[in-house]
Amino acid sequence: VTITDIPTPALVVDVGALDRNIRRMAGFFTDDTCRLRPHVKAHKTAEIARRQLAAGSCSGLTCATVSEAEAVAELGADLLIANEIIGRQRCDRVARLARAQAVTVAVDSAEGLDAIGAAAARAGVTVGVLIDLDVGQHRCGLRPGQEALTLAHAAARAAGVALRGVMGYEGHVQAIRDRGEREARAGEAMRMLVATAELLLRAGLPCDIVSAGGTGTFDISGRMAGITEIQAGSYALMDTDYRDTGVPFEQAFWVLGTVISRPSAERCVADCGHKSMTKDHGNPSVHGIAGATVTALNDEHAVIALPPGAGIAIGDRIRLVPSHTDPTANLHDVFYVIEGDRVVDVWPIARGYPEQR
Amino acid sequence: VTITDIPTPALVVDVGALDRNIRRMAGFFTDDTCRLRPHVKAHKTAEIARRQLAAGSCSGLTCATVSEAEAVAELGADLLIANEIIGRQRCDRVARLARAQAVTVAVDSAEGLDAIGAAAARAGVTVGVLIDLDVGQHRCGLRPGQEALTLAHAAARAAGVALRGVMGYEGHVQAIRDRGEREARAGEAMRMLVATAELLLRAGLPCDIVSAGGTGTFDISGRMAGITEIQAGSYALMDTDYRDTGVPFEQAFWVLGTVISRPSAERCVADCGHKSMTKDHGNPSVHGIAGATVTALNDEHAVIALPPGAGIAIGDRIRLVPSHTDPTANLHDVFYVIEGDRVVDVWPIARGYPEQR
Repeated sequence: VTITDIPTPALVVDVGALDRNIRRMAGFFTDDTCRLRPHVKAHKTAEIARRQLAAGSCSGLTCATVSEAEAVAELGADLLIANEIIGRQRCDRVARLARAQAVTVAVDSAEGLDAIGAAAARAGVTVGVLIDLDVGQHRCGLRPGQEALTLAHAAARAAGVALRGVMGYEGHVQAIRDRGEREARAGEAMRMLVATAELLLRAGLPCDIVSAGGTGTFDISGRMAGITEIQAGSYALMDTDYRDTGVPFEQAFWVLGTVISRPSAERCVADCGHKSMTKDHGNPSVHGIAGATVTALNDEHAVIALPPGAGIAIGDRIRLVPSHTDPTANLHDVFYVIEGDRVVDVWPIARGYPEQR
Repeated sequence: VTITDIPTPALVVDVGALDRNIRRMAGFFTDDTCRLRPHVKAHKTAEIARRQLAAGSCSGLTCATVSEAEAVAELGADLLIANEIIGRQRCDRVARLARAQAVTVAVDSAEGLDAIGAAAARAGVTVGVLIDLDVGQHRCGLRPGQEALTLAHAAARAAGVALRGVMGYEGHVQAIRDRGEREARAGEAMRMLVATAELLLRAGLPCDIVSAGGTGTFDISGRMAGITEIQAGSYALMDTDYRDTGVPFEQAFWVLGTVISRPSAERCVADCGHKSMTKDHGNPSVHGIAGATVTALNDEHAVIALPPGAGIAIGDRIRLVPSHTDPTANLHDVFYVIEGDRVVDVWPIARGYPEQR
């Protein structure tokens, strides 16, 4: 089976490039002061997570949702759900996972702490918690300092939970193109996080985990004293947005499409629109056709401007480079695994909301 | 079961509002000169298509993909796949559908015509074809006039296919906010389409179908002499993009989320990010909280700026109004059907690529 035999649009992942990215990232975390906790949200694929763990240097896995944690539970890793978990049913699912492996969640409220503690008590397990800090992204998280310390004291006293430390995702700096500015802004964020970790330690509270980082800051935040783990995800597959930050990883996945229309010398249309890859970080790039650009991405169509003389015919397969890994992987049920043009495996993606199925 | 019992994020559809939209649109197409051919791509939901057909005024259903046609095949309607169908397997799937019901596809090339004709011949069926014209969107489609007429002659001679007419989607004008400008631009596009239809008729070729239109032009293109059917889809569910064009339909679906963080008086965060609703037409609106706005939509988070004194607590359910119906429905496996806050049914969505499952 080759890429000409599979239905399009399809996600194809070059397993050699994927493994090189995974090894390169693992190779950065070779001393014990800081580990890697690969983020599952980028791919939602147990087989990719398995390869990330097998490469070493990992403290466990990061997930954004309970569903993602359930999808990789079979791997037996230490799981961090780096997000606030609210709602009795959802907390009970976390507690169920905690029967078989270490599971930690983020908390930024007394309500969240109570909910996960109650679920843990119902299940007779202990769930780890990290105090979630707003280090500049202004999404979830408490203010660094006293506010965080107060919730940490409550977590240390609460039944069913074990305080493990703090986290603070510097998501607002990941995509800054200029390396110097990215370093400066990540530094500001990480100093707030580390200072709060020190507050906890001085108060005699546990703080083994200080978790942060992403693909744009793995070698910035990951080198700062006091940060114990980096939650990078996109590095494994990559996209045009992270490519433009200059991080040292190669493109490992594409959307494969079929040319369905060739209405003029300077234009073709492929059957892979934004239902097959999102455009929230811009239109995709065209792989392997110099001078070709995507001029429009509609529901089921990629409109491509071609350079003079491009030998593109109806029925040809083309590859587009997505601009944003995470939501693109989420649109598909499988990765078709390729070596060159051969399809050597198919990996299921735990996309969407398994609780709806 | 109420909306507080279902897992979030979730799509909820108000069946009363949906049915009112469906009736309102059907009520526009009451004479026989122009019919409605509701577009399945907006919802990918057989039950919604069934209600659209039951409301009357329909010539059949429109689909963008073969998978969508397969998902609504059980309804037995006349199916138009308003897209170029390329590839032997895909053409064979169309031919299989044509055993049980009338199926028509768009063609804009000799290659496309040959492929569908060969598949039809293999299956011993006839597949209808419409000559697809570029009426200004510059996506697929032949130039109106002679180029289209040449392919129409070929289609009339080809084995396995039946020429049924022409189509030309004025997608480039659907979202123009100013009604006068939308009318003018749609008029230009439709005159090209109707003129080509007349060319076919003068050449003695069949041209029973002249298909165009969408939710933004149903009462513009749908009133032009020579247009026989309108391919509108979004009107059934609606979104903020079409709302801003002033079309007379009400919002009938929302993304339901749970507030998971309340980090400050002026901000809350809900668990419904752009993996649950796309932002290619902008951030969603907040339903039912005056003065609240979505300031960021990340993978799994909607960050919402709240007005002073908003009584929003962790655990509350909120509703967001998507900016773009079609790709948002495509992110979910089901619609939760509501009457008020009661969940009265669950409708499966044929999202993504069923051929991958």
